[in-house]
Amino acid sequence: MDYKAYFENNREQHLNELQEWLAIPSISALSEHKGDVYKAAEWLAAKLTEAGLEHVEIHETKGHPLITADYLHAEGKPTVLIYGHYDVQPVDPLHLWETPPFEPSIRDGKLYARGATDDKGQLFLHVKAVEAILKQEKELPVNIKFCIEGEEEVSSPNLPLFLEENKEKLAADVVLVSDTSLLAPGKPAISTGLRGLCSLELSLNTANTDLHSGSYGGGVPNALHAMVELLSTLHDKQGRVSVEGFYNGVQELSPEMREEFAKQQFDEEKLKQDLGLDALYGEEGYSFVERIGARPTLELNGVYGGFQGEGTKTVIPKEAHAKITCRLVANQDPQACLDAIEAHLNAHTPVGAKLTITPKEKAFAFNIDPSHPMLQKAADAYETVYGTRALFTKDGGSIPIVEKLASTLNAPTVMMGFGLPDENLHAPNEHFNLENFDKGLLTIVEYLKRV
Amino acid sequence: MDYKAYFENNREQHLNELQEWLAIPSISALSEHKGDVYKAAEWLAAKLTEAGLEHVEIHETKGHPLITADYLHAEGKPTVLIYGHYDVQPVDPLHLWETPPFEPSIRDGKLYARGATDDKGQLFLHVKAVEAILKQEKELPVNIKFCIEGEEEVSSPNLPLFLEENKEKLAADVVLVSDTSLLAPGKPAISTGLRGLCSLELSLNTANTDLHSGSYGGGVPNALHAMVELLSTLHDKQGRVSVEGFYNGVQELSPEMREEFAKQQFDEEKLKQDLGLDALYGEEGYSFVERIGARPTLELNGVYGGFQGEGTKTVIPKEAHAKITCRLVANQDPQACLDAIEAHLNAHTPVGAKLTITPKEKAFAFNIDPSHPMLQKAADAYETVYGTRALFTKDGGSIPIVEKLASTLNAPTVMMGFGLPDENLHAPNEHFNLENFDKGLLTIVEYLKRV
Repeated sequence: MDYKAYFENNREQHLNELQEWLAIPSISALSEHKGDVYKAAEWLAAKLTEAGLEHVEIHETKGHPLITADYLHAEGKPTVLIYGHYDVQPVDPLHLWETPPFEPSIRDGKLYARGATDDKGQLFLHVKAVEAILKQEKELPVNIKFCIEGEEEVSSPNLPLFLEENKEKLAADVVLVSDTSLLAPGKPAISTGLRGLCSLELSLNTANTDLHSGSYGGGVPNALHAMVELLSTLHDKQGRVSVEGFYNGVQELSPEMREEFAKQQFDEEKLKQDLGLDALYGEEGYSFVERIGARPTLELNGVYGGFQGEGTKTVIPKEAHAKITCRLVANQDPQACLDAIEAHLNAHTPVGAKLTITPKEKAFAFNIDPSHPMLQKAADAYETVYGTRALFTKDGGSIPIVEKLASTLNAPTVMMGFGLPDENLHAPNEHFNLENFDKGLLTIVEYLKRV
Repeated sequence: MDYKAYFENNREQHLNELQEWLAIPSISALSEHKGDVYKAAEWLAAKLTEAGLEHVEIHETKGHPLITADYLHAEGKPTVLIYGHYDVQPVDPLHLWETPPFEPSIRDGKLYARGATDDKGQLFLHVKAVEAILKQEKELPVNIKFCIEGEEEVSSPNLPLFLEENKEKLAADVVLVSDTSLLAPGKPAISTGLRGLCSLELSLNTANTDLHSGSYGGGVPNALHAMVELLSTLHDKQGRVSVEGFYNGVQELSPEMREEFAKQQFDEEKLKQDLGLDALYGEEGYSFVERIGARPTLELNGVYGGFQGEGTKTVIPKEAHAKITCRLVANQDPQACLDAIEAHLNAHTPVGAKLTITPKEKAFAFNIDPSHPMLQKAADAYETVYGTRALFTKDGGSIPIVEKLASTLNAPTVMMGFGLPDENLHAPNEHFNLENFDKGLLTIVEYLKRV
């Protein structure tokens, strides 16, 4: 069967469909988009049905809905469970988008839209790959199950329970996920590790009202002074997280692991240029790929307080706020990390400020042995389509649910990503390089045939 | 003449008029309110005319208009120049207002509105005091000039030139300003010092785009990390400003000055309770009134960067921003302070961040000798109305134009304030205690008769 010709013939139709989906602002974090998230789920369910999948179901949850579907007619053959998510990140700062985030636009062979690469674009490939095989061959070489959620960007609060309650329905020999990246154009990679996550919000309150800096400046606490003083204690001068106990469970890099990282031949100079950075940053003694792949991090995602408008306002703010997320590795326990951070913040809160902490998400890191046959077959599939064998990497991102899928379903997980590292996921001007759209479709078909 | 009865009879009318004025949102800092600022000027000009003032003029400037008026028929008598401002501060955070800032409302003998005490309410007293004398006695005991501006809250960018160009027109024997506070209810005060001011905005930029903390967290600079690290260097653990050269020109407190401050018998415990503070804050070795009256301060008025919305966004922000104002004392040179801060910020900017600084306002501190007869007569006037002699204090606020008025017109300036320290000027729920509205009218009449 000539899948290349099939996908070329249907390319325009496929891209039109994907753009229709991307136009739905399915931002799971913002409650005003609840209806849009639902619309995006319904859209996908319809496409799964059109593709020939059976038992397409939308499952209500306490949050956004889950979708399952299957095609189980390859008796005696392995079962592949495809996971993905149809929800997307928020879009601010909106003014930095060259074209509106929910008006998809193709420029220079790239499809621009929020969700283009994370993860609607990548998930769409699986729907169309399965459809292609069914249309061309009237049967599938494996049994297929889909389990798709709309809450990945808010750390999948409802999927774990669903997995527990539907272990048998979702049982599979391998879980297939496309929500990661190639190393670089033409350099495929299979992630064998994902960082875990924990997050929290904190507020500092000083007075019961904002105060005038003339009448009070120099004599009362300023919530912003307290906040910058407190937050500045979180890292030391060497870029390490200063929170006592934060590194518990982190494994030192073995010479073998360092060798594996070195194989990526990652170009740090090019990264600096691409991102317009004066300098890289991070823990002393580690390369960029080691920092991202095997070291934890604590990031300030938002800090705010006081006057942000035009001009000057001589105010002493009564409150200040911060949002923090950590990426975790190896055996770091997310709850223990949250506890350690909470203890640190309590111990370092300046006199005169009252601290409030709200813990949010938590997830363990995920790791798999690259020698597993299901991963080796994936590397073979990439080699066939890209002409170069996939490297096994550790990814810095977190897909908290991957560890849950793997541990609940007790199945190996193959992270078959088709994004690129510079595609601005979670940032303005997110896009998906259409070269990997085309090759992704072929790689998935190839993999399903080899499993 | 019974002024008490006159003001009682006209009280409702006066309060209705003031509320009409307060309803005009004359926020000078926000360009979208330019029309409202003009409306507030026109409203005042009409009232000055109604009051019997002559030569009422609205002067266009590059910014908001100035108003002058006079009544010069007391030959051989001194001339009093009344200064005030009809512009107001911004109102955010709006949700903390119990009633809308531009829908004036009287509760418990207090008039709530933005501008109620700073400065529309206080300025209004002068218009009505002059009107009262003219209506009752058909003449004034002194010559009166008004010079009113609409840019005080943005540091009077256009008034200094106007003063220079109109020195003769505005020449006076005393400048009278009501834009400060009593010490406490029933405890009048005449400010003999105002702090100077300098201000700036700064931005830190790291990457050319916001980045995903999964793909980059721990390996690239985070603009918020850089910002909290940089801002945390501005103060030491003893509450002193750490900027080298910042204290140049500041005078150490003499035993006599400390005695004068001690006379205020300021209740620091009560302040803590009133403002809901766990602790006061500031330079070690100084009392609250000394810190406010005779020590400079550097305040963060706003800090912001990254995600501020609902939920979590795992973003590494590419930029962060801060707004800073300083209150200056004695002979501190505002430009030299700005230079010192700029040098400090440059020297302490973390690696990987690019610093941009925008200097904004600057003004010298103002000081006057309390033994001047024009000040002693003001203390007499307070004593007649309040039954207690005004103390001579140093005010922590800045009215940059006061120093300009005094030095350009070479006249003593009497800061005859009728606000109270807890009236939330520059904060939500600004109000004016009507007891001082009533007594203020009488005190001004009394003063004009004594000059």
